[in-house]
Amino acid sequence: MGRRLFKELERSYGFDEVAIVPGQVTINPELTSTKMTIGDQEFDIPIMASAMDGAVSPGFASYMHEMGGLGVLNAEGLYSRYDDPYSVLEEIISYPLEGVTEFLQKVYSEPIREDLIGQRVREIKNSGATCAVSFTPQNTKRMSPVAVEAGADIVVVQSTVTTARHMSNSYRGLVFSELIDALKVPVVVGNCVTYEVATELMESGIDGILVGVGPGAACTTREVVGVGVPQVTATLQCAAAREDYFKRTGRYVTVITDGGFRTGGDVCKAIVSGADAVMLGTPFAQAEEAPGRGFNWGMANPHPELPRGTRISVGTKGTLKQILYGPTSKTDGTQNFVGALKVAMGMCGAYTIRDLHKAEMVVAPAIKTEGKFFQLSR
Amino acid sequence: MGRRLFKELERSYGFDEVAIVPGQVTINPELTSTKMTIGDQEFDIPIMASAMDGAVSPGFASYMHEMGGLGVLNAEGLYSRYDDPYSVLEEIISYPLEGVTEFLQKVYSEPIREDLIGQRVREIKNSGATCAVSFTPQNTKRMSPVAVEAGADIVVVQSTVTTARHMSNSYRGLVFSELIDALKVPVVVGNCVTYEVATELMESGIDGILVGVGPGAACTTREVVGVGVPQVTATLQCAAAREDYFKRTGRYVTVITDGGFRTGGDVCKAIVSGADAVMLGTPFAQAEEAPGRGFNWGMANPHPELPRGTRISVGTKGTLKQILYGPTSKTDGTQNFVGALKVAMGMCGAYTIRDLHKAEMVVAPAIKTEGKFFQLSR
Amino acid sequence: MGRRLFKELERSYGFDEVAIVPGQVTINPELTSTKMTIGDQEFDIPIMASAMDGAVSPGFASYMHEMGGLGVLNAEGLYSRYDDPYSVLEEIISYPLEGVTEFLQKVYSEPIREDLIGQRVREIKNSGATCAVSFTPQNTKRMSPVAVEAGADIVVVQSTVTTARHMSNSYRGLVFSELIDALKVPVVVGNCVTYEVATELMESGIDGILVGVGPGAACTTREVVGVGVPQVTATLQCAAAREDYFKRTGRYVTVITDGGFRTGGDVCKAIVSGADAVMLGTPFAQAEEAPGRGFNWGMANPHPELPRGTRISVGTKGTLKQILYGPTSKTDGTQNFVGALKVAMGMCGAYTIRDLHKAEMVVAPAIKTEGKFFQLSR
Amino acid sequence: MGRRLFKELERSYGFDEVAIVPGQVTINPELTSTKMTIGDQEFDIPIMASAMDGAVSPGFASYMHEMGGLGVLNAEGLYSRYDDPYSVLEEIISYPLEGVTEFLQKVYSEPIREDLIGQRVREIKNSGATCAVSFTPQNTKRMSPVAVEAGADIVVVQSTVTTARHMSNSYRGLVFSELIDALKVPVVVGNCVTYEVATELMESGIDGILVGVGPGAACTTREVVGVGVPQVTATLQCAAAREDYFKRTGRYVTVITDGGFRTGGDVCKAIVSGADAVMLGTPFAQAEEAPGRGFNWGMANPHPELPRGTRISVGTKGTLKQILYGPTSKTDGTQNFVGALKVAMGMCGAYTIRDLHKAEMVVAPAIKTEGKFFQLSR
Repeated sequence: MGRRLFKELERSYGFDEVAIVPGQVTINPELTSTKMTIGDQEFDIPIMASAMDGAVSPGFASYMHEMGGLGVLNAEGLYSRYDDPYSVLEEIISYPLEGVTEFLQKVYSEPIREDLIGQRVREIKNSGATCAVSFTPQNTKRMSPVAVEAGADIVVVQSTVTTARHMSNSYRGLVFSELIDALKVPVVVGNCVTYEVATELMESGIDGILVGVGPGAACTTREVVGVGVPQVTATLQCAAAREDYFKRTGRYVTVITDGGFRTGGDVCKAIVSGADAVMLGTPFAQAEEAPGRGFNWGMANPHPELPRGTRISVGTKGTLKQILYGPTSKTDGTQNFVGALKVAMGMCGAYTIRDLHKAEMVVAPAIKTEGKFFQLSR
Repeated sequence: MGRRLFKELERSYGFDEVAIVPGQVTINPELTSTKMTIGDQEFDIPIMASAMDGAVSPGFASYMHEMGGLGVLNAEGLYSRYDDPYSVLEEIISYPLEGVTEFLQKVYSEPIREDLIGQRVREIKNSGATCAVSFTPQNTKRMSPVAVEAGADIVVVQSTVTTARHMSNSYRGLVFSELIDALKVPVVVGNCVTYEVATELMESGIDGILVGVGPGAACTTREVVGVGVPQVTATLQCAAAREDYFKRTGRYVTVITDGGFRTGGDVCKAIVSGADAVMLGTPFAQAEEAPGRGFNWGMANPHPELPRGTRISVGTKGTLKQILYGPTSKTDGTQNFVGALKVAMGMCGAYTIRDLHKAEMVVAPAIKTEGKFFQLSR
Repeated sequence: MGRRLFKELERSYGFDEVAIVPGQVTINPELTSTKMTIGDQEFDIPIMASAMDGAVSPGFASYMHEMGGLGVLNAEGLYSRYDDPYSVLEEIISYPLEGVTEFLQKVYSEPIREDLIGQRVREIKNSGATCAVSFTPQNTKRMSPVAVEAGADIVVVQSTVTTARHMSNSYRGLVFSELIDALKVPVVVGNCVTYEVATELMESGIDGILVGVGPGAACTTREVVGVGVPQVTATLQCAAAREDYFKRTGRYVTVITDGGFRTGGDVCKAIVSGADAVMLGTPFAQAEEAPGRGFNWGMANPHPELPRGTRISVGTKGTLKQILYGPTSKTDGTQNFVGALKVAMGMCGAYTIRDLHKAEMVVAPAIKTEGKFFQLSR
Repeated sequence: MGRRLFKELERSYGFDEVAIVPGQVTINPELTSTKMTIGDQEFDIPIMASAMDGAVSPGFASYMHEMGGLGVLNAEGLYSRYDDPYSVLEEIISYPLEGVTEFLQKVYSEPIREDLIGQRVREIKNSGATCAVSFTPQNTKRMSPVAVEAGADIVVVQSTVTTARHMSNSYRGLVFSELIDALKVPVVVGNCVTYEVATELMESGIDGILVGVGPGAACTTREVVGVGVPQVTATLQCAAAREDYFKRTGRYVTVITDGGFRTGGDVCKAIVSGADAVMLGTPFAQAEEAPGRGFNWGMANPHPELPRGTRISVGTKGTLKQILYGPTSKTDGTQNFVGALKVAMGMCGAYTIRDLHKAEMVVAPAIKTEGKFFQLSR
């Protein structure tokens, strides 16, 4: 061995493999601020809910706003395909596990209706909430103006992998700079995982990038097609791109780590990795207010020929308020994400999210291998 | 420590430890081509079925041809030992697990009949399919001309480990250059795992090499004798040998990663590692059309004194067409291998298999350690 | 990949990942001395019991003294909140698992009474034992003089993470140099995990530091907020700080690794990592004499909004004497910690704890991966 | 992080983490020779049975000789403490698991009788077998002459860790050079794991060293006291010492890897790591001829105060002949160790054990992580 390899492989890391190192100064958590911005929009907490039909309905987007965060509505989901999406949700939830993938494939073959996109945006705006809607690249140019006209504040363009240059015979490539000129609202694009793609996307003028390919709980892309980069390494790369782009241009683009989160600790690690915000699906699908009522499924799931993921039972863990702010009696980190973030900021002496970017992190063995012996007998 | 070691050990990698990095440009999967060649033979997909009796019968080889791939018939298996191999298959399948290894040892002690080799080749050719047959090195010189005379298009010479120089008292070493001169059809040789052996084999004039020692599901060589190299590292080495040999000679030898595949993601990773094609056993033994009807066993299994592997129950997962092309409702990557490959090519901006060779790959934690927490409650 | 990352990550190690290398000279265990000092206090064994209410009561502190070690009383726990803490312990122990975290949150909302602190100190001193009491930083300045006046020999200031500079609006930062001047007894401060923080704390004049954030069995800080450093790496850093500080000043500060221990082997590894002493919670909660009677819970557990850990059932494993000195018939390393330490010292040719600091250690695969196959059938 | 650590830690490896790379030339297994020597004694196979009472009785030592190997009798075990050790074995085997450690402690407190040592040696010699007996360092000087006088051919001096310099108040240190002069038979000493200790021991004039601290199946030293080095790294170090010593002196000392073996693959890996021979306990305790009749326990187990290991049920797997030579229908590598070794030698093109020393080895993921998915459904 040792002679010649076709290519070199570098090590990458996920949340379970790292730990944050406490700082040299500590501060009381109540002194910390968790504010975050996307373009001209400011939010009290750097936490977003994913555009998954089981997690974010128009109503849930309003609840997220009340809590200080942002819920993104999937503009190509059930809410834009059915006058009464709630009865379809009911059917999905009660469908037997055996056969549910086929049923999802069928339900999502109903066409998207532009009138319904407008209607859902207005429902969110009428509640007083900031409205963010997500589209796939192939539908963005045609459908996103409808949403913005109805009042949408942020447009998210999202597919499994997004680059500034996509080749297709079936639709003319989306040019992000043209989109930004046309829409005049902040545009967030994703998902990407490398320094180069993040840089190219930022150079197109967008306001935020979504980071993450393959890591989500309701997604099996990495198993099915082998493609993906663990979230810590993906975020470390895209954050490096943001820093370099900021030094070069003075424009600060929001880096949002999307998917793969299980605990508040994971949220803290994403931010120490350089994220400005995080986007979670399953933890919000576990809220009592979530439309999926304890079930969740990904956007790639209903793919007619190569489904990646299926309907998963995630259970209901508490109210949205408890999940975000506690108080909680759960001790496994799956509730009080904001409390956990503020405690971590305190431990690292970080007054702001960007201060927390300066904390150190180490590669550490997965938590199960150390000192947890006795809990087995719990 | 740190002073002196008898030898240095380098790290090697298997499929579960790597992930493909998406490219800087993406393309729609329908723009990709998966064509592959072995010598003068061209195939629509770079996927072969292993010469295992539970996977490839003459009939299954024809099905593989219809699907655009290649099924290799084991010319030393049941089909060449029994007039009616199907009743023997039936006995193997219904034999109690307790004692099946002894039964396999007994069944495979029946002699190989050259007349049956010819007959099986003709069965495949009469169906209109490309015919590939495999021999062990000790029988190749004597038996392979029979197969070629009967119409075989490709000869595969395969043992657990194959080198260009094998020392034996019981038969004169096989000289591959002589074999190639004699047969005048493409010759594929394996298995090997290192740059040096791959280079020596290529220099003998062969058209393809099989890569992989120890990794298969129905094989326990690595446990029993400790020998083996994980498939990603083995492929990286052999592909480096192919590139160097190509630069030196202008002749491109097909590198085929053989064994250890579980999902479409694994197939994609083998190709990113430099493989031109892959050869799978168990996934095809899981086809409805497979002769093993949900069971599989390896070529090293019936070894009379040191069996490595046994009959394993692999189940029946779908039709061959579903396994290769979908549509599927399986979400774990064990169906629609071609669809998965085309999606991965799209994500990496690869129009061809050789474009996919240029994709990046990282060492990543096994997928179970990241973000899969919630699926436990499925 | 390979271009730019937002920050670099170093590898860190926990107990399960290392093994001690035997020395070039060996000595009989009976020739070894395990003495340890904190300030002017000397102890026969370098083993302390954690300030956890399920592990250390005033009575248990006396038992620890008899055994040659030191039990630290939590001066902010049940013993300082209730006239009759034993009936409260009884309630905690018998409370159903469902709801126990809420119950702990309620029980610990009772105010701390300074008169009870004095009373508990006197109970310990009256038994003839060395008395160590622990406070959180916010209460230390006000409450620790009460304890010292009542006779406490050592004051421990302990929170999840402690630094020399803590920012707070709710209380004036604790200045350790002032505290030391005021109390005139040895002060131990923690927890910390890095070279820099350990150095700053030592420079404030303290006599001992506690090492460890996140590793304890009854603590889920690392899951909940993502912060923590595995104990071997944390100890290696703090011990390096102690050595450098000692070279610079001639003053030797006791480094105490706190938490995450499961076996005697872990204790030995902490000392080879540079610890002068170890502090254990759960192993002592497993003593027959422990007030928790087979249950344990951490100091961060009853946090009203973000509990980290809960009541765990640790069982009762033997008398304190057996746990520390054997004889034992347990073969898993959870008893006879002192015996194990003396055997390890013998294997490494170490007459003293500081000799054992010179032993070598290697990164080794977790013990389950080697040679334990047959024990499964035990 | 990254500044200062108290000491550096190097990575070490066990059998499960490595794989042997096939060679550039292969040979037929029947062309290989597995001969091994210790001093003036030659053996057909490089395989020894450990001095464990459940594995080697005088009768079993004779069987090992018939098979071409060497069984070492524990001269301080039951056979030297009881006139009728077989009824004591019976009691141990039938003792309830609960309490068996105490029972072992009691049984082994019976004194060693020198007359019985002589009697057991004569039993072995009378059968025509080569006789090897093992002593602990403290008893060697007094008892080993008795054994040699009775006809013992090889003396093994063995404790958990052995160095050339051992400090003790209870007996005068054993000087190996004096022992060798006195006994005039080959002396094997162990166990050791580092280059330095192996070198010092070789310089004392001994004929063989035993390599391994902590790895055995019936031993829990590494858990209990934290000391141990995985077998691949330990062997790589001691073999480097042998090579250097050989270059310097022209004397070749036999390196014997002792313990931690599970499969034939492990045996092959030890030899590729540089071992000249291997010593196994549990696999021989699994022979039908073994005195332990399916049970085994280590020499450190009956320690009166700190037992490390206990009686484990290892089961009976076949005759000694099957375990060493097959034929077998087991496919997991636990039978036909010699067959596996010869196959590995063939794959690596090694005619002799010392040729196999030249094979390459890689660090590879544990075998469970690759391609074994389908066997779950077996």
